[in-house]
Amino acid sequence: MSGSSSGVDGRDEASTSPERTLTSQVIARVRSIDHRREDVVTSALHCILDTLGVAIGGVHEPVTTNVRAEALDEGGAPRATLWGTGERVSRPQAALVNGTAAHALDFDDVSALMEGHPSAPLLPALLAVAEGAGTTGEQLVGAFVAGFETEALVGRLMSPSHYARGFHATATVGAFGAAAAGAHVLGLDERAWAHAFGIAGSRAAGLKSMFGTMSKPLQVGVAAENGLRAATLAARGVTAHPDVLGTAQGFRDTQSDAGGTPAAWGWTGPAVTDVLFKYHAACYLTHSAIEGGLSMRSAGVTPEHVESVDVLVPAGHLRVCDIAEPSTPLEGKFSLRFTTAMALVTGDLTEQAFTPASLADPVVVALRDRVRVSARTDSDSRSSIVRVTCTDGTERVAEVDVNRPTPAGQLDRRWVSLVTKFHSLVDPVVGANAADRIVAEVAGLPTAGSVEPLLRAVAGEAGGTPGR
Amino acid sequence: MSGSSSGVDGRDEASTSPERTLTSQVIARVRSIDHRREDVVTSALHCILDTLGVAIGGVHEPVTTNVRAEALDEGGAPRATLWGTGERVSRPQAALVNGTAAHALDFDDVSALMEGHPSAPLLPALLAVAEGAGTTGEQLVGAFVAGFETEALVGRLMSPSHYARGFHATATVGAFGAAAAGAHVLGLDERAWAHAFGIAGSRAAGLKSMFGTMSKPLQVGVAAENGLRAATLAARGVTAHPDVLGTAQGFRDTQSDAGGTPAAWGWTGPAVTDVLFKYHAACYLTHSAIEGGLSMRSAGVTPEHVESVDVLVPAGHLRVCDIAEPSTPLEGKFSLRFTTAMALVTGDLTEQAFTPASLADPVVVALRDRVRVSARTDSDSRSSIVRVTCTDGTERVAEVDVNRPTPAGQLDRRWVSLVTKFHSLVDPVVGANAADRIVAEVAGLPTAGSVEPLLRAVAGEAGGTPGR
Repeated sequence: MSGSSSGVDGRDEASTSPERTLTSQVIARVRSIDHRREDVVTSALHCILDTLGVAIGGVHEPVTTNVRAEALDEGGAPRATLWGTGERVSRPQAALVNGTAAHALDFDDVSALMEGHPSAPLLPALLAVAEGAGTTGEQLVGAFVAGFETEALVGRLMSPSHYARGFHATATVGAFGAAAAGAHVLGLDERAWAHAFGIAGSRAAGLKSMFGTMSKPLQVGVAAENGLRAATLAARGVTAHPDVLGTAQGFRDTQSDAGGTPAAWGWTGPAVTDVLFKYHAACYLTHSAIEGGLSMRSAGVTPEHVESVDVLVPAGHLRVCDIAEPSTPLEGKFSLRFTTAMALVTGDLTEQAFTPASLADPVVVALRDRVRVSARTDSDSRSSIVRVTCTDGTERVAEVDVNRPTPAGQLDRRWVSLVTKFHSLVDPVVGANAADRIVAEVAGLPTAGSVEPLLRAVAGEAGGTPGR
Repeated sequence: MSGSSSGVDGRDEASTSPERTLTSQVIARVRSIDHRREDVVTSALHCILDTLGVAIGGVHEPVTTNVRAEALDEGGAPRATLWGTGERVSRPQAALVNGTAAHALDFDDVSALMEGHPSAPLLPALLAVAEGAGTTGEQLVGAFVAGFETEALVGRLMSPSHYARGFHATATVGAFGAAAAGAHVLGLDERAWAHAFGIAGSRAAGLKSMFGTMSKPLQVGVAAENGLRAATLAARGVTAHPDVLGTAQGFRDTQSDAGGTPAAWGWTGPAVTDVLFKYHAACYLTHSAIEGGLSMRSAGVTPEHVESVDVLVPAGHLRVCDIAEPSTPLEGKFSLRFTTAMALVTGDLTEQAFTPASLADPVVVALRDRVRVSARTDSDSRSSIVRVTCTDGTERVAEVDVNRPTPAGQLDRRWVSLVTKFHSLVDPVVGANAADRIVAEVAGLPTAGSVEPLLRAVAGEAGGTPGR
């Protein structure tokens, strides 16, 4: 009510001493990250490639189709590219549509610090601002890192009660990441950064109760749009509370029980090197068991060898992905039994592998029914154990934890895996040639004088005609 | 995290039994309101006129100028009118810009049930959807009432902890009102209404900590845009959790401690007849004291008669509008001493009256300094008491409560007051002729075959050229 619309709450003091506020602490840290460090750049490129891949792979999902049709119907100055279709729309529309697409398959990267998916709300906003703005590849990578670090820091500030209460951190915290990336590309000063954060926080929303509906990816697209608008409106001089993170009745105060500051944690980042990727088109909490199953398969275990399988997972997983007899492909993605059986029988857990036919495959089903899932009681480990009892009485055990960041020495191997994943998602939409062009442009970003060739590549009209 | 993105939370059962959910209870009630009842229609027309007035009066506020410039820069199919300028933009852009303008002066109507301003997030979304859609005046009024009742019901469902926690109900609850109005005009079925509510709830945001910055009106404009998008995307088939109000980790669960259902309260509405209006361009909590001062002035009390003034207000007011010596026009609006003195000295509390000159007027300041403000201790009344001790030793007392809805018998008088307010806001922007046209079109809405003449009137280019 207007009754409370007083402007006299001590804010002026805070804004003249920006170094004192929590928001300005976060901003200063984000701006101080060395985004030229080799492992930082490499991880950022991996995120960028993977996000473009899952988004182009998600172009024909119903939610993307709907949001895209709405945007095209609204019209707008054709300034930003819709990935995988080549249509050009306004910047906020591109952020919205590409952001929705990037989370439509729920196959995008993960940050434990953020408790969510960092790149889907971030990269679409960033590329929409960068397009046509004379941005270099290095600037793009720097802005991406700024957005990622923002999400990690803000996520950490809100954690764990924010997500536990029911907020979808990918969408809420993601809006801050998108705002930071936009602020970086637009070259805002620290004061305008704070206003951008304030505007982002005043619009940040997203509910976990939307999981399983089109609104899950939609609210990630909205986060991208919100973050982009926060940056562009702050650039115009729109004001907000400059300490949305720390003030009473700000973003943290209203949506978290958490306290603490980055300084108190002694944590300096970078966070982007801790990013995790999904290589299987299933719930992330099934990944450790899948990897266990795949390692058995590589070691020569075949379905006819298997008497029974025990899958032991952290207790929390059972509340998320313990569907015993999945009846739809989506349910299959949330079934530890089914995905472990698939890993052993076919080794194929790509998006295309989750079909009604694979759900009903008699060999898979027969093995699935010999899988027992239970909670680990022996430790608070995040790893999962797959124990196969063979028909000859022998036992094989694999323990896997996919929550560990890839060691620096294995980043090349990760790139190869991500390129494989990329092609599996992108080739069916725009063809292998167009996919190859995108891979090459992403790899060349650190020295690219402009992001425009990348944007022409991601336009990737079906058929992948080069040189558009 | 994707780890929790299970679709298996009992939602399917709820969606096949919509009458059981809290959301469907709200929707059913909203749809059952008799929006042809005379006092309902009259109150709706009053809200519509007043909202158009404060929005056109707010067209040149810096926040409106910025958001409008951004929208014009984005481009879009010119399908909806920007009030007071005649520019045409896309529907979501019109909702955003007009919604921002409607709250820019903080002079718009109030609903105690909603704990906020109902019309500013609602009417801009509604007119944006109605324009060019063949909507009749009666349909427009019906949709407005549906939106208003939604805000009252949702606001009551969240109250009082939602606003107390720091959420700006005008923006958060307002998104539901805008969605409902859009759903009504678009003729959605009850299932699509529930999805529209879900989409609205997944985007609903707004923080009280933004008060005193441009983000306060901005987040109201965003609410209008969010509500509009919720309705249009639901019309396309975008899905959401169908019980965003009642489900675990839904809108109420995440942002309120409240319980209860409309059925349990025994309340059936309509709420629109309880709407309150601001007639003075100051904080609503100063209004009772202002009215007390005005009644003294009408009774012949002049500054030279006044020895001292005691203003007794509900204790909570002191935390909001007790600036003793305001130094800016905005602070003047939050000063019980200054506004009471203005009421006694000049009787003028229009937007134009809050100027640096009036703040420094020696007669006003001298009287202001003889005003004592204190909390009522005698009751939990919402009324304020103005007690003037005259130089001749006599005392005069007025007790006023502006929180009482206007009695049905005085609606005609209210219309006259609102038309006066309307002209004071609109004439300086588009001229008196254009203002008169808008007043006539609003008055004629109940029998208007189309809303297009109203929309041509609110286009109202400066100068008020008729017949555009």
